[in-house]
Amino acid sequence: MSKKVRTAVTPTREENFPEWYQQVIKAADMAENSPVRGCMTIKPYGFALWENMQRIFDGWLKDYGVQNTSFPLLIPLEYISREADHVEGFATECAVVTHHRLEKNEDGSALVPAGKLEEPYVIRPTSETIIGEAMSRWIRSYRDLPMKLNQWGNVMRWEMRTRMFLRTSEFFWHEGHNAFANEEEAVADTTHILNLYDKFFKEYLAFPGIKGVKTPDERFPGADETYCIEAMMQDGKALQAATSHYLGQNFSKTFNIKYQNKESGEDFVHTTSWAFSSRMVGGLIMMHADDDGMMMPPRIAPTQVMILPILRDDADTDKIMAHAEATAQILREKGLRVQIDSRDMRTPDKMWDAVKKGIPLRVEIGAREADEGTLTHVRRDLGRDSKTTESLSDFGAHVQGILDAIHDDMYQRAKDFMDARIVDIDDAKALDKLFKKKHDGFARMDVAQLEEIGVQKAMEAHKLTSRCLPLADEGKKVLIGKAY
Amino acid sequence: MSKKVRTAVTPTREENFPEWYQQVIKAADMAENSPVRGCMTIKPYGFALWENMQRIFDGWLKDYGVQNTSFPLLIPLEYISREADHVEGFATECAVVTHHRLEKNEDGSALVPAGKLEEPYVIRPTSETIIGEAMSRWIRSYRDLPMKLNQWGNVMRWEMRTRMFLRTSEFFWHEGHNAFANEEEAVADTTHILNLYDKFFKEYLAFPGIKGVKTPDERFPGADETYCIEAMMQDGKALQAATSHYLGQNFSKTFNIKYQNKESGEDFVHTTSWAFSSRMVGGLIMMHADDDGMMMPPRIAPTQVMILPILRDDADTDKIMAHAEATAQILREKGLRVQIDSRDMRTPDKMWDAVKKGIPLRVEIGAREADEGTLTHVRRDLGRDSKTTESLSDFGAHVQGILDAIHDDMYQRAKDFMDARIVDIDDAKALDKLFKKKHDGFARMDVAQLEEIGVQKAMEAHKLTSRCLPLADEGKKVLIGKAY
Repeated sequence: MSKKVRTAVTPTREENFPEWYQQVIKAADMAENSPVRGCMTIKPYGFALWENMQRIFDGWLKDYGVQNTSFPLLIPLEYISREADHVEGFATECAVVTHHRLEKNEDGSALVPAGKLEEPYVIRPTSETIIGEAMSRWIRSYRDLPMKLNQWGNVMRWEMRTRMFLRTSEFFWHEGHNAFANEEEAVADTTHILNLYDKFFKEYLAFPGIKGVKTPDERFPGADETYCIEAMMQDGKALQAATSHYLGQNFSKTFNIKYQNKESGEDFVHTTSWAFSSRMVGGLIMMHADDDGMMMPPRIAPTQVMILPILRDDADTDKIMAHAEATAQILREKGLRVQIDSRDMRTPDKMWDAVKKGIPLRVEIGAREADEGTLTHVRRDLGRDSKTTESLSDFGAHVQGILDAIHDDMYQRAKDFMDARIVDIDDAKALDKLFKKKHDGFARMDVAQLEEIGVQKAMEAHKLTSRCLPLADEGKKVLIGKAY
Repeated sequence: MSKKVRTAVTPTREENFPEWYQQVIKAADMAENSPVRGCMTIKPYGFALWENMQRIFDGWLKDYGVQNTSFPLLIPLEYISREADHVEGFATECAVVTHHRLEKNEDGSALVPAGKLEEPYVIRPTSETIIGEAMSRWIRSYRDLPMKLNQWGNVMRWEMRTRMFLRTSEFFWHEGHNAFANEEEAVADTTHILNLYDKFFKEYLAFPGIKGVKTPDERFPGADETYCIEAMMQDGKALQAATSHYLGQNFSKTFNIKYQNKESGEDFVHTTSWAFSSRMVGGLIMMHADDDGMMMPPRIAPTQVMILPILRDDADTDKIMAHAEATAQILREKGLRVQIDSRDMRTPDKMWDAVKKGIPLRVEIGAREADEGTLTHVRRDLGRDSKTTESLSDFGAHVQGILDAIHDDMYQRAKDFMDARIVDIDDAKALDKLFKKKHDGFARMDVAQLEEIGVQKAMEAHKLTSRCLPLADEGKKVLIGKAY
């Protein structure tokens, strides 16, 4: 590709990756920091992406027999206290509701909290405890199992250092909570969900990841085993993209979730929980965007095709707009999400807007195209080099193929990037040497090495964590890297 | 209809309406009170209803050009303080977040709030203020108008006396917030949205309502005009089903939402806000359910057709299940939501379960039906009297017509009920007399009568409020009644 003399986003990834990330979000108009400490406002274009992700994956969960529910936003303090590991994991970062009223202060100049609650509540950081309490009442016999529940919603973990989508105090996710009669079914559920995530990320987000299990110190508080998908961002850091936890009988014993088995004895159920969050939007940006802005994976893009009418002479406006409408109509009939940018703006500004928003395919229609029944299209991922002029009917016949090719290429680029940056090493010395040379990627080594003091020291020195034991390596290897 | 000797729900509507309401929710397994004071847990069957309502109406909003967003759950105290009327309306009932951490107490026996916030936040009771603040930055010129934003989410108003769906501390809704260049467009938007609600309620929920405007004392805090839809429940009380507010320039002046107009001067925008909430689920119950449980309007029902295989003899099981599956397949191809109840339960229990859940159409398939290629169906609203046996192919050909007839009949019954209970009266004396006789409905009188001391006294004595000035009466009449 040709050298860029000027990029739509400043700074570039190479100049300052964290700041580039913020500027991509701004350039694509996806979100902004809100006046509420640590919380973001998701703007229409960013929210449309999240809605598309929700819609697709929600359908998959329903096909798997999961039912949506809604549990309260607030959780009694006492619930959090019950599960010891859970306390350690969450107690330090919760929003606490202590009052239920506001009153004017003495001089009437401001509102102050009043109506102190006898028992404070926390805004849910996650819902295992309150769902566990409900399951203890809802599950009576083996006939009630499996019970598969999910909710889409907001949760809150008070964060000191925040970054939009990646780490915010309030964030959005789905959280699934399933209960089973035995360990075998529960573990199978945990890995089934992990595979659903992997498939969804691959097929809709063009997002390659590595399936693995977490080491004990990186597990979810209260889990027996945490499965995860780890992905590599363009700065070589890891993003934990989704997790699926096998909780064993930890929560069922704490919350007394028992069932009458077929032999008329009583057993505790085995539970799982699993989630991905709006953090994935951040992951998509850091995996796919470039120095010109966002790059939306076509199958999830809010707008898949943007049509730009190139209006130079008023006399041509009608025929150009008519041809643009006809093009949009044909694409809509194919089920594509299409827009015509008819805003009162200069054409180059519209073009750059589509680039910065990462719209997968841009179609340009000027007077000549209108006359000839053709159009010119440009792939966002390949840029001007992919510029092609063809007839509307030819384009209509293979537009889906172009979008699929963009998807495949985005996936392959990201996968090649990741694969090239996973370096096999043997020992502490090699680990230290690798990251001293500012390795932008992961190291892979025998899992037994994690016990070595030298390895632990090198990890601490370079701020590395064990990301996962890849399933592909059957638990013999560990991936080590920096992480978001 | 035949006299009922036994009802599936106890007590009946006549015996104890409020308790009947709670028992219908329990019998249909839609929701339950949660361990969190004033908050409910929405169970899968109740949530599926709410999801269907969301999905349909969200599509309509998108067609109208509304874009979904997500604003923070928490609102700075200072924002609430800015708009004086808004303070009066909301300050007394907010959940207040004052701490951001939990710590173990001195003896380590419990968790206590720690990390006191310098500035407390409230959990949003509604989002006019924080959206107003954002609009003041997002709107620059007339080119940015109209701006139409919506969000689906949870809000919280601390309630002392709660009732599931109708009045809970946390509830679910959509809240729309639009901004326009002038009053004319903003008022047109307010009524357009009101008409969308009315159409949605009528066409999907079989839910008749009266469109009107609120008297000043019943207006939304901060609104210039509140439009509403008032509906009548089966106890004759009113339910405010939806509201659409014209906010004038109240919020734009408070939050400094200005735009550059075409003449290059600056103007404040005119805003609107509008909502319906999960309260509508309560409204559906109180309008349509009967002494045997819930009655779901067919177009929004989570399950539209429930197929009951009547299994008496093991030898017949295969052919009955095969016929049930074939029936389900034909209905699914028509886009209907169908289930086969193959649970390990007695047939009468399954039958009553379908009745209590209010599934619009029940199909029974036994050995004879399987042999003959027929089925027997029963309408939930008409009961056994509507029992019909016919061939699967005949049924397939007109099942949509049956569901439409159920919808139309449910709407008409509710409308007839309401129309028969709106009594025209002239003065205070007549008002007092009407409600002394325990009138279960509304009174309609000249709006000027509201000024009369006698009318005010009668309203206070009978706990009546002005519900609305119906649009149909061009502001000359007022409806008075008890309300939820």
